[in-house]
Amino acid sequence: MTQLRLEPLTAAAFAPFGDVLDATGDFRLINAGLCHRHHDLARIDTGDARAGISIFSAEARALPYDFDLLERHPEGSQAFVPMTQHPFLVIVAPDAGGTPAAPRAFITNGAQGINLHRGIWHGVLTPLGAPGLFAVIDRIGTTPNLEEYRFSAPWCVLA
Amino acid sequence: MTQLRLEPLTAAAFAPFGDVLDATGDFRLINAGLCHRHHDLARIDTGDARAGISIFSAEARALPYDFDLLERHPEGSQAFVPMTQHPFLVIVAPDAGGTPAAPRAFITNGAQGINLHRGIWHGVLTPLGAPGLFAVIDRIGTTPNLEEYRFSAPWCVLA
Repeated sequence: MTQLRLEPLTAAAFAPFGDVLDATGDFRLINAGLCHRHHDLARIDTGDARAGISIFSAEARALPYDFDLLERHPEGSQAFVPMTQHPFLVIVAPDAGGTPAAPRAFITNGAQGINLHRGIWHGVLTPLGAPGLFAVIDRIGTTPNLEEYRFSAPWCVLA
Repeated sequence: MTQLRLEPLTAAAFAPFGDVLDATGDFRLINAGLCHRHHDLARIDTGDARAGISIFSAEARALPYDFDLLERHPEGSQAFVPMTQHPFLVIVAPDAGGTPAAPRAFITNGAQGINLHRGIWHGVLTPLGAPGLFAVIDRIGTTPNLEEYRFSAPWCVLA
């Protein structure tokens, strides 16, 4: 089983895959100075369909974490905003001619969401603490908008 | 000073103002049964502009809480997703001929976001615990998209 080491989630490291949604970087002061607005951080792309907000409630996983399945959404981006302060695991992979190349495993710092760009290979939602509650901003359409790929051997994300 | 009592945030009570975003109600099982998807809960309305995701970091407030200012966004809806499990205060008011009527003060249960419908009078973002971190899904445009109204006397939300 091939082992993956956790990488801290940073905007620079994650740039090939999507956007990091957090309160670092530039902001506008609003509400009489009592609120920082970090403006328009996600490249939302839902093609000819609209964006919607759904709530996901996912079972918490533990490290080490084994997986062999990745998926991607060819028709739209998908953002995950954690509704708790627990770090979560973000598994992504570059594409290599229609199937995923070697995956990478990022871990959030508890104050970050992500927006996966359209067509990026990624693992299923993997919270590391309960309740695994997330707001998901993605394409609302009538097509399946899903491709799955199963590796011939599993990968293991180390603790 | 006129006093307001807290009301628990429920979908039924909040329906005149917007949507409650939470993991109650119907869902689809996804990810081999390990995730519930509560699908498409928000009536996003951004007119002729696009929706975007911003991160707000707001100063925590305490109860009792006094306010005299409400605002509304005539050109679009605005959703607030808390990134922590702290309850937050949601102040809204019906419209009465272009200015707000008597406000109401809802409190979330720590696992709820909201989507304010277009044009609904509301108070500024008022977390009740630090860090007051929220993802905001609203209209990204070039117009001010803001009306403010200041009451002649303040309102007080009781503890």
